[in-house]
Amino acid sequence: MSHITKVQEWLADNSYDIAYISDYKNIQYLTGFGSDPIERVLALFIFPDKDPFIFAPALEVEAVKETGWKFPVYGYLDHEDPFLLIKNHIANLISDPQKWAIEKGNLTVTRYEAIKQQFPNAEFTGNLTPVIEHEKLFKTAAEIELLKVAGKWADYAFEVGFNSLSTARTEQDVVAEIEYALKKKGILHMSFDTIVQSGANAADPHGAPKADNIKANELCLFDLGTVYSGYVSDASRTVAFGQIDAKSKEIYDVCLEAQLTAQAAAKPGITAAQLDKIARDIITKAGYGQYFIHRLGHGMGQSDHEFPSIMEGNDMVLKPGMCFSIEPGIYVPGFSGVRIEDCVYITDTGANSFTHSSKELRMLPIK
Amino acid sequence: MSHITKVQEWLADNSYDIAYISDYKNIQYLTGFGSDPIERVLALFIFPDKDPFIFAPALEVEAVKETGWKFPVYGYLDHEDPFLLIKNHIANLISDPQKWAIEKGNLTVTRYEAIKQQFPNAEFTGNLTPVIEHEKLFKTAAEIELLKVAGKWADYAFEVGFNSLSTARTEQDVVAEIEYALKKKGILHMSFDTIVQSGANAADPHGAPKADNIKANELCLFDLGTVYSGYVSDASRTVAFGQIDAKSKEIYDVCLEAQLTAQAAAKPGITAAQLDKIARDIITKAGYGQYFIHRLGHGMGQSDHEFPSIMEGNDMVLKPGMCFSIEPGIYVPGFSGVRIEDCVYITDTGANSFTHSSKELRMLPIK
Repeated sequence: MSHITKVQEWLADNSYDIAYISDYKNIQYLTGFGSDPIERVLALFIFPDKDPFIFAPALEVEAVKETGWKFPVYGYLDHEDPFLLIKNHIANLISDPQKWAIEKGNLTVTRYEAIKQQFPNAEFTGNLTPVIEHEKLFKTAAEIELLKVAGKWADYAFEVGFNSLSTARTEQDVVAEIEYALKKKGILHMSFDTIVQSGANAADPHGAPKADNIKANELCLFDLGTVYSGYVSDASRTVAFGQIDAKSKEIYDVCLEAQLTAQAAAKPGITAAQLDKIARDIITKAGYGQYFIHRLGHGMGQSDHEFPSIMEGNDMVLKPGMCFSIEPGIYVPGFSGVRIEDCVYITDTGANSFTHSSKELRMLPIK
Repeated sequence: MSHITKVQEWLADNSYDIAYISDYKNIQYLTGFGSDPIERVLALFIFPDKDPFIFAPALEVEAVKETGWKFPVYGYLDHEDPFLLIKNHIANLISDPQKWAIEKGNLTVTRYEAIKQQFPNAEFTGNLTPVIEHEKLFKTAAEIELLKVAGKWADYAFEVGFNSLSTARTEQDVVAEIEYALKKKGILHMSFDTIVQSGANAADPHGAPKADNIKANELCLFDLGTVYSGYVSDASRTVAFGQIDAKSKEIYDVCLEAQLTAQAAAKPGITAAQLDKIARDIITKAGYGQYFIHRLGHGMGQSDHEFPSIMEGNDMVLKPGMCFSIEPGIYVPGFSGVRIEDCVYITDTGANSFTHSSKELRMLPIK
């Protein structure tokens, strides 16, 4: 069943007349057409028992058709009132829809007031935000294939990054090398700002790569992801650049045990909170609990900011098709930091990773 | 007078009790602290006659303080209800504010309903979106200095791009070279996806760089911008890679005349629509009017999507401090395209450019 059909069923089940989808990423999810309209209006209207339509800036209309969208698409020019045009397109399908569902988590007050003005007798009580978030929890086989390709490029990026480590390069230089190599392969976008942190810089899990040179005989932390056909990868590896001391080795081993144990435990039936606790208990038992200062993971798919959140308090039961990161970290201020991360998808029996770079501690020669 | 003081005056003049700023770019503009909170809540509250405060995710609180923000900043943890905490912080300053101003162009319905729930007796009629947009129209001397630096890096990017042209490279490869060189210099972000389009590809003003090789004896169009300390540059140049034919030379000359004439005419007193018409008339008179299919320019500053819009129908009178692009283009489908663009700031007597790369047609040797 298509994603749009599921929204149609939800509308029928809940007696809504019309759905107004305003989030361009959700429009991409539902229709296959993805484009950030920035300040212009891009909208998808879905009805319980009629064909949907897309309303788009005029300059995007051809691009919508090229995706194979088989329902109507209507354009508007910058000097036209989009909400007046929308009203007229809707009037051709249904006279005065009363019960609306909107994306409350995305629609701005300005646009909410604009659509309300065109339909003064309607009520806008339905909220599609949680409906679509829930639907997006479960990736289809086609989506998982795209996520695998994005993961493959993250693995490639790690190899470039590891090979680029040099005391003559800064953290920012290594980022430049990674992204240059990807662009040369046609991977034009990262899913977030690439992180390369050497030595004590790695102790800041919210830090950015600096103009500091890579330090010899220290850990170096990489966190990166690529975008492939609208789907992302996200993975972290920490490597030894030269010889590292016993404490660095210890925090690596503890973090790795937490990561591997949690990844092995990820399967249908366990809750997000239980999975977080499995990793956290290992780190806490080793005496580093106070240095694991973030949740175990986050959902991912079209972005790094999806559900489920793998954290204390989230009793959501994991089910096949869910995709998320497993990324324990130990950050010892002023000393160093380790994060090891794969994103996985839940299968009927366990979890498969989108990235396959070895997680055994890599000892790279100083150069 | 500080930007916050201006908002305070507007609140007092319009009898509002409180302003809720939700757009993180506007929070940066008003406070100097800039960070995209993504799904978390970041808010700035301003009162007509009390000190403002920032409400932020706990992990951002130290970063706010490091910017030198001298008023309170309050944090919240992921498991806390941000709007309940906000209510309590406000209650310490003012009992039950009645008249609110919000950013209707940014605030989502979900957050609008959340804040309304905490203040059920209040009215949320004030709209700060146009107030701040208007304030942002006029850049301060300090902002113009940042825009100049961003412009300098765009000029550097052009040199890298021109030197990278080769029949052995694709358009995407040239983008990779440009962004690599900038990252090596510590310029980590572009203000939009860099455009390099060779030959007939340049005829698509909404296109992206392709995996097609750079074509010899054709025009090549560059459109790029950098981010420097939260402010952007944006400029376009079109060069000849080898020998170009007479028609390519003609559309270049027409486009250049339109650009230079409009830039020379940009000064206080002229309207945005008049400026657009000056450029458009030159292109139309030369017989290419139907190929100039976008507005002459857009405002810029923290992004490429500010006011004023330099287009037909906008009778806004240009004034000192306004910053915008002047970017005529001629796109002949299936043949080639030219765009020449500088961003400028209006002075008391004219317009100064942020970018200084020569606009005379550059003839680059084939390699």
